[in-house]
Amino acid sequence: MAYELFYWDGLQGRGEFIRLALEMAQADYRDVSRSDAAAVQAFINDPTVTTPTFAPPVLRDGDVIVGQTAALLLYLGPRLGLVSDDERLALWTHQIQLTVADLVSEAHDSHHPIGVGHYYEDQKTEALLRADEFRNQRMPKFLRWFETILKRNPSGPQWLVGDTLSYVDLSLFQLVEGLRYAFPNASAALLTDYPNVVALHDRVAALPQIKAYVQSDRRTPLNQHDIFRHYPELDSTPN
Amino acid sequence: MAYELFYWDGLQGRGEFIRLALEMAQADYRDVSRSDAAAVQAFINDPTVTTPTFAPPVLRDGDVIVGQTAALLLYLGPRLGLVSDDERLALWTHQIQLTVADLVSEAHDSHHPIGVGHYYEDQKTEALLRADEFRNQRMPKFLRWFETILKRNPSGPQWLVGDTLSYVDLSLFQLVEGLRYAFPNASAALLTDYPNVVALHDRVAALPQIKAYVQSDRRTPLNQHDIFRHYPELDSTPN
Repeated sequence: MAYELFYWDGLQGRGEFIRLALEMAQADYRDVSRSDAAAVQAFINDPTVTTPTFAPPVLRDGDVIVGQTAALLLYLGPRLGLVSDDERLALWTHQIQLTVADLVSEAHDSHHPIGVGHYYEDQKTEALLRADEFRNQRMPKFLRWFETILKRNPSGPQWLVGDTLSYVDLSLFQLVEGLRYAFPNASAALLTDYPNVVALHDRVAALPQIKAYVQSDRRTPLNQHDIFRHYPELDSTPN
Repeated sequence: MAYELFYWDGLQGRGEFIRLALEMAQADYRDVSRSDAAAVQAFINDPTVTTPTFAPPVLRDGDVIVGQTAALLLYLGPRLGLVSDDERLALWTHQIQLTVADLVSEAHDSHHPIGVGHYYEDQKTEALLRADEFRNQRMPKFLRWFETILKRNPSGPQWLVGDTLSYVDLSLFQLVEGLRYAFPNASAALLTDYPNVVALHDRVAALPQIKAYVQSDRRTPLNQHDIFRHYPELDSTPN
């Protein structure tokens, strides 16, 4: 039976980390978000689900229902062949994914520092301050960490964990895509300091499965309803 | 060999979720944060660690080093007997823990919406706005979700997962403690709507191991350097 992914239509969002894994593995899946918004709502509100997710994305695999992006990749990783069989390396992969999730949340809050209940236009003043800290402090701190763990990988800097691709490589690819979209100036300036991160991004982009997916109409372009948003006033070359 | 916990001294923070699990299981552990701040810094900056954490807490168990609070509990859960042997229930436990982590981050940002690089006093205006949304929108949304999953637990609402205590019950206890400290008025008003959450908190508080720990000097009191902070101007009864 096919995996079913439930998320919001019209954006990549956190669902994209799941899509990249499913696409890489050429898994049989149905992106319910893209075909049937009513079914997504009905599923999320279904009172008979004993493990309801706090927020999408959520995946149904037969009678297993899993939410929280990182937990979902923890579940899918071994099933899709996208994580090491070694227990320690699998845990390390998950730990990196959780750090990706932290950066994703902070990238979101750079344009919504007051909260999701208000429009960007109503928190633009605050967003200018938060985005300044994000570009100058947080982005370099996270990117430096990714560069460091690539360099410290005992198997070499080709992949984040061990000597083979895992789902977290796809996630770091997506992170770089998002940061470049939202903060083109800051990203261009910062990424020159993190060559292993850029090389990993490019290595993932060149994978035939990922290349085909990114060029397909299954990949929704990044846009201003997404987690990563490009507001030119929030971007500049870091200090 | 004893577990070693590396964190910051002087606060409960995210480390407290780990301490509660270790204390509940009466595990042999050394809270390095409380005894040797220099050792914490040295460990965090150790360039020979191939799995460095992005931020504390981090745990060393022999030659295993794990960071990210939720990943750490994923690792400790089975070792401390604080999670179900059932793979699905263990994943569900982890998924709930990740949602606890999301609420913890939002609670932090209620007093630091612009970023950790600025003092509270320099972002107080913005904090008033963010805390308003936190009390009125986010706290009820999260608490309602915890209440719902307790009510939907097929084994009954005594514990979050199955019919026995797991680490995430300890985490929900800690969440209620933190919210009551930071937002006494909002918490008092809101929690009346979530009787199963309150009952779970009280059930955990009454466990002999937790009761003894909370009364011991190993438990640092919540304070204004912590994730949960009590600024009276950020608290009020929700609208």
